[in-house]
Amino acid sequence: MEEFEETTPHAAGESGGTGAPYDLITMGRIGVDLYPLQTGVPLPQVTSFGKFLGGSAANVAVAAARLGRRTAVITRTGDDPFGTYLHEALRGFGVDDRWVAPVPGLPTPVTFCEVFPPDHFPLYFYRQPKAPDLEIDAHELDLDAIRAARIFWVTGTGLSEEPSRTATLAALAHRAKAGTTVFDLDWRPMFWHDDRRDGMRGSRRGPDTARRFYAEALRHTTVAVGNVDEVEIATGEREPHAAARALLDAGVRLAVVKQGPEGVLAAGSGGEPVQVPPLPVEVVNGLGAGDAFGGSLCHGLLAGWELGRIMRYANAAGALVASRLECSSAMPTADEVEAALTAGAVR
Amino acid sequence: MEEFEETTPHAAGESGGTGAPYDLITMGRIGVDLYPLQTGVPLPQVTSFGKFLGGSAANVAVAAARLGRRTAVITRTGDDPFGTYLHEALRGFGVDDRWVAPVPGLPTPVTFCEVFPPDHFPLYFYRQPKAPDLEIDAHELDLDAIRAARIFWVTGTGLSEEPSRTATLAALAHRAKAGTTVFDLDWRPMFWHDDRRDGMRGSRRGPDTARRFYAEALRHTTVAVGNVDEVEIATGEREPHAAARALLDAGVRLAVVKQGPEGVLAAGSGGEPVQVPPLPVEVVNGLGAGDAFGGSLCHGLLAGWELGRIMRYANAAGALVASRLECSSAMPTADEVEAALTAGAVR
Repeated sequence: MEEFEETTPHAAGESGGTGAPYDLITMGRIGVDLYPLQTGVPLPQVTSFGKFLGGSAANVAVAAARLGRRTAVITRTGDDPFGTYLHEALRGFGVDDRWVAPVPGLPTPVTFCEVFPPDHFPLYFYRQPKAPDLEIDAHELDLDAIRAARIFWVTGTGLSEEPSRTATLAALAHRAKAGTTVFDLDWRPMFWHDDRRDGMRGSRRGPDTARRFYAEALRHTTVAVGNVDEVEIATGEREPHAAARALLDAGVRLAVVKQGPEGVLAAGSGGEPVQVPPLPVEVVNGLGAGDAFGGSLCHGLLAGWELGRIMRYANAAGALVASRLECSSAMPTADEVEAALTAGAVR
Repeated sequence: MEEFEETTPHAAGESGGTGAPYDLITMGRIGVDLYPLQTGVPLPQVTSFGKFLGGSAANVAVAAARLGRRTAVITRTGDDPFGTYLHEALRGFGVDDRWVAPVPGLPTPVTFCEVFPPDHFPLYFYRQPKAPDLEIDAHELDLDAIRAARIFWVTGTGLSEEPSRTATLAALAHRAKAGTTVFDLDWRPMFWHDDRRDGMRGSRRGPDTARRFYAEALRHTTVAVGNVDEVEIATGEREPHAAARALLDAGVRLAVVKQGPEGVLAAGSGGEPVQVPPLPVEVVNGLGAGDAFGGSLCHGLLAGWELGRIMRYANAAGALVASRLECSSAMPTADEVEAALTAGAVR
């Protein structure tokens, strides 16, 4: 069996040292999730919402921290009480918030969802006129820390607008495939707005624009992760095996294609692809499952596990989050993941 | 004592007829209010929010409907589930939603608040890139219905951006002071953005720009309502008596200056000004009290009450809403207002 990184698991004492490299630095979205406290009903019938830390990059850092990893997130908030909350929440989850800064004049994004288990969870983003996390500027980056991190994680949304796009690509280029560099393909067409004033209502830059920047990011990527829609944007291929091959041809060492109910396909540059079925679970809210998967993927890569074990573990973590309403605060501990794996299902 | 309109109170059967004029048509803001279910703590510590119909123009229509008046609101929502909710909520409150239409591409606004009784209730608006209610276009207006309404109510926010500004002024001009035309001065500096793409972060058009449009609206106004900040924008005067005189000089027949703990000053073009102290109340959330005041003001004007009675009644309605967390669903019935007036306080 292929092992992806010959690294020692995270030592307990390490997280106290500020000089030691991070296990994981993520870069990208953060925001406040407002999730219905009544599920299975449309938004008009929801009477109250719970407030949670959200945003994919933040959630992945939380997921890995919950598994004992030393993590940080590079992102931006509004200069407002919700921004203060996000700092407090990150620290509460053990994620370093030193690279989380406020952007004056832009509100902290909020996201609502509708919860229709098992598979329909529409999102309603309030990220206008611009999300602060797209205001990350290249010159603000701690490139040494990014280069030193054992894993660096970026997302496709970070490529959708400037200056975040240049910053993301600059960070990737500086890192130059040191250690593990994960590109979460994260294709969200609603974020690829036209640059004009009336962008939200005007035409959108299509997948063609995205593909160019996705290709540039892939050149600096060692691990690419995405669902079938996302790998299609990155490669033009929807069929999982073909998409995985195209990602490997683009230079990544590991391609992970999430297929929902069909499970996960993982293909490394050496060895046979691994196909892992989903863990049986009664879904409460599928949102956040992908971020749990991502944080666990990092955990497994850092531990140097073989590919099948990493995928089973990440699948189980995702299933656990899907069995819970919230995202960040639902990220499972190692004990919970092991218990689900032993049981063969999320109970 | 001065009486403001010699009109018969609303007859019970009238609200069934679609041809009859409305008692009140309001034009302006609508949105979803998300109010903390934990009060007295900052937003970072709030864990859940209740969802309510909000927006000043909508709330005023709800307040008057709760008092038995036939009302409608002219506004716009997003083409999204929150927009659907606002239609359902308006109808639930007995407010006609026939002039509430969706604007594709713009999300329904949401507003968060912090609740620090008795007098600090910061608002956090999500109305970017533009609120749908500022997309009301003059050619979409039912000018005959607006002219026929016994009271027509507009707000200063409706003057902040085009095409709403032109639509608001066109409606006022067409009405030409028929019946009662209320201008809720409603000065919210954060809505007076620069027109440039980076407006939210750039310079704002100041009070000087607003004053020009306020003056134009006042020419078509019979009743002006505002707090001391708002009357200063409209008249340059902060001192309540001076501001009221300036509003009367501008041609209104009734000027109402809300002074918070000092009570309310109402000055008509004939007769002595009336100063009414606030009703004692343990404040839970001051937001919405002004809209309750406004709906009751309309109710009293429609009933042809003398000025002192109208002000005491409107004050009591405002105090009742201040004693409750939410706005729209907190609007009092006539029985509740009468009980508070009899008790001399909100219990």
